[in-house]
Amino acid sequence: MKYSQTTENNINQYKRRKMTQQVKKVLVTGGAGYIGSHTVVELIENGYEVVVVDNLSNSSYDSVSRIEILTKHHVPFYDVDLCDREHLEPVFKEHKIDSVIHFAGLKAVGESTQIPLEYYHNNILGTLVLLELMKKYDVAKFVFSSSATVYGDATRFPDMIPIPEECPLGPTNPYGNTKFTIEKILNDLYNSQTDTWKFAILRYFNPIGAHPSGLIGEDPLGIPNNLLPYMAQVASGRREKLYVFGNDYDSRDGTPIRDYIHVVDLAKGHIAALKYLDSFETTKKTGICREWNLGSGTGSTVLEVYRAFCKACGEDIPYEITGRRAGDVLNLTAKPDRAKKELKWQTELNVDNACEDLQKWNTENPFGYQLNGVEAKFATPEKEFDARFITIGAGTKFAATIANMGATLVDLKVDGQSVVIGYDDEASYADPEACYLGATVGRYANRIAHGKFNLNGTDYQLTINNDVNANHSSISSFHTKRFLGPIVRNPSQGIYTAEYILMDKESDGELPGDFEVRVTYTLNVEEKTLDMDYEGKVQGKATPINMTNHSYFNLNKVNNPSIEGTEIAVISDDCIDVDEHTIPTGKIIKREIATISSGKSTILGKDEPKYDYNFLVDASSAPKETDTRSQKLNLVTKAYHPESKIGLEVYSTEPSYQIYTGDWLAAGFAPREGFAVEPGRYVNAINQPKWKDCVSLNPGQTYGAKIVYKFSS
Amino acid sequence: MKYSQTTENNINQYKRRKMTQQVKKVLVTGGAGYIGSHTVVELIENGYEVVVVDNLSNSSYDSVSRIEILTKHHVPFYDVDLCDREHLEPVFKEHKIDSVIHFAGLKAVGESTQIPLEYYHNNILGTLVLLELMKKYDVAKFVFSSSATVYGDATRFPDMIPIPEECPLGPTNPYGNTKFTIEKILNDLYNSQTDTWKFAILRYFNPIGAHPSGLIGEDPLGIPNNLLPYMAQVASGRREKLYVFGNDYDSRDGTPIRDYIHVVDLAKGHIAALKYLDSFETTKKTGICREWNLGSGTGSTVLEVYRAFCKACGEDIPYEITGRRAGDVLNLTAKPDRAKKELKWQTELNVDNACEDLQKWNTENPFGYQLNGVEAKFATPEKEFDARFITIGAGTKFAATIANMGATLVDLKVDGQSVVIGYDDEASYADPEACYLGATVGRYANRIAHGKFNLNGTDYQLTINNDVNANHSSISSFHTKRFLGPIVRNPSQGIYTAEYILMDKESDGELPGDFEVRVTYTLNVEEKTLDMDYEGKVQGKATPINMTNHSYFNLNKVNNPSIEGTEIAVISDDCIDVDEHTIPTGKIIKREIATISSGKSTILGKDEPKYDYNFLVDASSAPKETDTRSQKLNLVTKAYHPESKIGLEVYSTEPSYQIYTGDWLAAGFAPREGFAVEPGRYVNAINQPKWKDCVSLNPGQTYGAKIVYKFSS
Repeated sequence: MKYSQTTENNINQYKRRKMTQQVKKVLVTGGAGYIGSHTVVELIENGYEVVVVDNLSNSSYDSVSRIEILTKHHVPFYDVDLCDREHLEPVFKEHKIDSVIHFAGLKAVGESTQIPLEYYHNNILGTLVLLELMKKYDVAKFVFSSSATVYGDATRFPDMIPIPEECPLGPTNPYGNTKFTIEKILNDLYNSQTDTWKFAILRYFNPIGAHPSGLIGEDPLGIPNNLLPYMAQVASGRREKLYVFGNDYDSRDGTPIRDYIHVVDLAKGHIAALKYLDSFETTKKTGICREWNLGSGTGSTVLEVYRAFCKACGEDIPYEITGRRAGDVLNLTAKPDRAKKELKWQTELNVDNACEDLQKWNTENPFGYQLNGVEAKFATPEKEFDARFITIGAGTKFAATIANMGATLVDLKVDGQSVVIGYDDEASYADPEACYLGATVGRYANRIAHGKFNLNGTDYQLTINNDVNANHSSISSFHTKRFLGPIVRNPSQGIYTAEYILMDKESDGELPGDFEVRVTYTLNVEEKTLDMDYEGKVQGKATPINMTNHSYFNLNKVNNPSIEGTEIAVISDDCIDVDEHTIPTGKIIKREIATISSGKSTILGKDEPKYDYNFLVDASSAPKETDTRSQKLNLVTKAYHPESKIGLEVYSTEPSYQIYTGDWLAAGFAPREGFAVEPGRYVNAINQPKWKDCVSLNPGQTYGAKIVYKFSS
Repeated sequence: MKYSQTTENNINQYKRRKMTQQVKKVLVTGGAGYIGSHTVVELIENGYEVVVVDNLSNSSYDSVSRIEILTKHHVPFYDVDLCDREHLEPVFKEHKIDSVIHFAGLKAVGESTQIPLEYYHNNILGTLVLLELMKKYDVAKFVFSSSATVYGDATRFPDMIPIPEECPLGPTNPYGNTKFTIEKILNDLYNSQTDTWKFAILRYFNPIGAHPSGLIGEDPLGIPNNLLPYMAQVASGRREKLYVFGNDYDSRDGTPIRDYIHVVDLAKGHIAALKYLDSFETTKKTGICREWNLGSGTGSTVLEVYRAFCKACGEDIPYEITGRRAGDVLNLTAKPDRAKKELKWQTELNVDNACEDLQKWNTENPFGYQLNGVEAKFATPEKEFDARFITIGAGTKFAATIANMGATLVDLKVDGQSVVIGYDDEASYADPEACYLGATVGRYANRIAHGKFNLNGTDYQLTINNDVNANHSSISSFHTKRFLGPIVRNPSQGIYTAEYILMDKESDGELPGDFEVRVTYTLNVEEKTLDMDYEGKVQGKATPINMTNHSYFNLNKVNNPSIEGTEIAVISDDCIDVDEHTIPTGKIIKREIATISSGKSTILGKDEPKYDYNFLVDASSAPKETDTRSQKLNLVTKAYHPESKIGLEVYSTEPSYQIYTGDWLAAGFAPREGFAVEPGRYVNAINQPKWKDCVSLNPGQTYGAKIVYKFSS
């Protein structure tokens, strides 16, 4: 994926605000949900910091991990029920909250008539606990997710369509009653301290559509309660047909009229409301409690929306007219004039746009965030969502487990048998003695002589961490940094991708420039291949660059903790000669190891041969490109174990590869429990004029590399 | 106090219902409060069993202990906040609840505008948790304490005064909003299961007055929010004057019009509603959710009520007209027709009756339940309210501590120094080795030879527990039974009373007849006297009767755990001769002990003399009366200790007294740590024709006795 200029501008805007101490932190409850997630994106793009609280009862954390990649911004997340004061209060202690946008709540009209106690308990108590903590922690600005449902059947009054905020309220179902009650609570609380509280009550009409990126959208668990998600599931084949609840209403085509609003427009309405409350704080020094309709002002019938959706997806989906649904009324079209006048907000997108974006979301995510063959577990005792182990291909014959920390390949299972070594928890990976197991090594893999280099006329000195050298970026190493994301996808049967990014700022370590890297794992179950794609850019200054994956393989792990007996062959026995500090002398030598073309193998014994050498794919070339991904994907190493009968082929676009037989493994592992094949660029290339270009990344350039592990069994 | 025939009839009615298994158990939330406590009384008098839950945030457990004595019925009580599901659920597990009457809630209109969050949280969550548990435990009948406040200003509509239930709702304050919301919850819950739930929503108008017994009434903590309690506190001198909030309303005299309803009428409305719900259960087999106004239909202005109150208390209390109060409206008079027609209920009492009953309550309890000089602590680790130690005269120079168990005198402090021995917890008193320390001994104190007696032609055999005899009623002894109550009063400066009753049924032990006894302690701080008054009646069969208090005194306890050095003298050295089993031989002998008239004393030494003998007040008489309280109060024993300089005089109306020097004390106490003076009737009198009459209590007769401990220092 390319980086959009827009997002980069937003990041810059964020940085500027942060530097001038103007960043306001917004607590978003229900921020993993449909409207919540879109509002989180808009908040970040408007320079706010965001903390999300969600109990995930009707949403998925994947929306948040995707937002992290969409916005290139970490989003602190708490899996907390608002009714649980004990666990909600720490959020207020850990963050200086400036304002709250409150989406969390049960929201299905039909369900609310079946289980009203749950609706009242959850929606009202959750709001009360939130307000109590706001009071305790001096947070006074609050944007509330109300609903046009509070009006009930506005057609019972004369001249109330389109519905103005002054329309008398009269909800006709428990869900609407909870929204009505919360509005009363806010009014009463405001009246108790009119100089303090700043409440914006936003009465939503019908939100539809999805983010134009296709990354986030509505993902109702179970059977969708709303029209558009239901149609989307019919279009994707998850549901047989659309049921239209009644065509005997007094409308153009007999179906009820609603005011549909693109969810991105709706999200922007929250920013407008928040800024309006901000203005009360900064200029008026007084409180406010006021309601605004968020709607388009244009009513559409169910069948009109149906036709717009069919146009967007290019086919007429099946539908059936059935009986009216309890609680439905004829017409709920908004009069949005107050929001336009006071909040300077109005809708910019229409039903057609919404249907197109919905169709993109639906096509790219036919099952929303719920993917078969994907599992997640927490990697820390604190159950942090940004420190998880995600398994793709779970339950299939080829599965990979990846950590946020280091975008590390934690485990790889062929036919259910683990073929790499790794740890069960994040803390073990952070052990200083741990040997980069499975890690995404960066920014600069392998050794830099004496930790010194010069880029664009500036001398840099890294901390020495390996004999007299700096190895694997020394203290700036990626392997203990948590990557953002992932975005996990299942684009077709047996294909899974997991995409991580890291925003590695100059201030985060010793390396120059703000570096941004995207690591994408692609798993193909049938082919038993795991691709790793690395893509990076730098801002501000040039940086040395050379990344790789540092998995230690043991193809016979199920039978023997040692790699003993592994048969290995490489593309070429041309090897970089090194001095006593393992720094290249500049010479190329032949190393005793079997080549693939020879048809023979070197057998790794219990202790010998020991390898920790950098081999060359083509000793005659010295590539200049920082992005090798368009280069030939060479089979650089083959390995096989006759006992397990598992074979490995390592492919790469990179010019060299380190072979390491794990003779210095530590931190829970013994020597030779795994061997590493580390495709990458030449050792110490940053200090070798001939090789320096391909490891020097300047602003405006793109770094790229590709590695493939292919197994047979 | 005399027993009213009415109450006895109610008790009989209760027993009949109980025997036919028709007793329904009603959970009353907020049952310690004003309306709640009156409703509990009506429920019991209508044959229901009651369980009370109350968090005592605005009420006192004393209302419940008084109800126990008023109704002669144990009332299980739980100090639980309804929002605390963890502690509320056990109530549903421990009791088979048939229906719930829900009073608990914050209720001050003015306060609700100041702290609305607390009102919403407490009132709504408490109701939701209650309904959730009802659902879980299949309890479907629910009477809800709503309020006319839900109507708001009904004068804004034409023809809505008096207010019918059909009047549109529109509460004007947070308190009213919470009631409104709960009504919505009940309607929505009913609609979710119309065949199950049976909800009666009672919209109260203005409850006033108190129970005609003067035992329970309104006891607002802090400044009263309502008119009548405020006036009552002005009348009793606790408040300077009445503030009338506005005389510029459009009424007869400019003050707002309300519909005042006697709290006893209101309480009866709940019984009517409950029976109506019962009828749905038994005959219609369907659910219901319906609202009824509970009001008189007659409006009174504030000044009219003021004048009625002044008439009742015989003086014009001061008042001042001040500004209108937020949330007040002109007129809230009920149209009570629906309740009259459907519930067959209407008010029977008027404002004058209410003012008279209020004045009685106020006069007899000028500080409500809050008495200075009274303290209570729990006597069990489970903090059971029916097992407390109450101290009267706490913080004064003479204080007595009394337990529910055995109506036991646990401690007695003269000038802060304890002069009796006792335990810190109830369990110790129940130890089989414990020696009746401080206990109310009954029904039959002292020995019955061989545990045998004959009454009205029937032979009885008690379990032998003392040599070959039955002592202190053997296994039927009162000392391990919990008495109901107490009613604690402070009728004048330095005078405290604590009144307990025990309903000792024939089925509770080995003694014939259902016996009811009232034990009243009266403490006079200035005189340093503690009076004990015993009054008993039996139903069904005759019972042997002979009660006493079994305190062990050590006047020098502060200096020496032994009674050594105590100087003692008695009214007469005439003593009942006993055989080797300590049963009277029939002879009267002289025992070596100083008489009061001799002006000398017997000094109790470290080990000698040992006394455990029954002395006679007047050897020449053999009284026949079962009630001695009108007899002469004789000084039967004087004691003094020269080291502590504390003196004791024991007075009694009883014909004999046991002197016991505690030589067999056990269970935590050594011999001679205390001596007992036990006024009562002759040893084994039930088997002595000459003395039998005064210890045989027949139905229709009254047993009575009086003992006084008087101290000097």
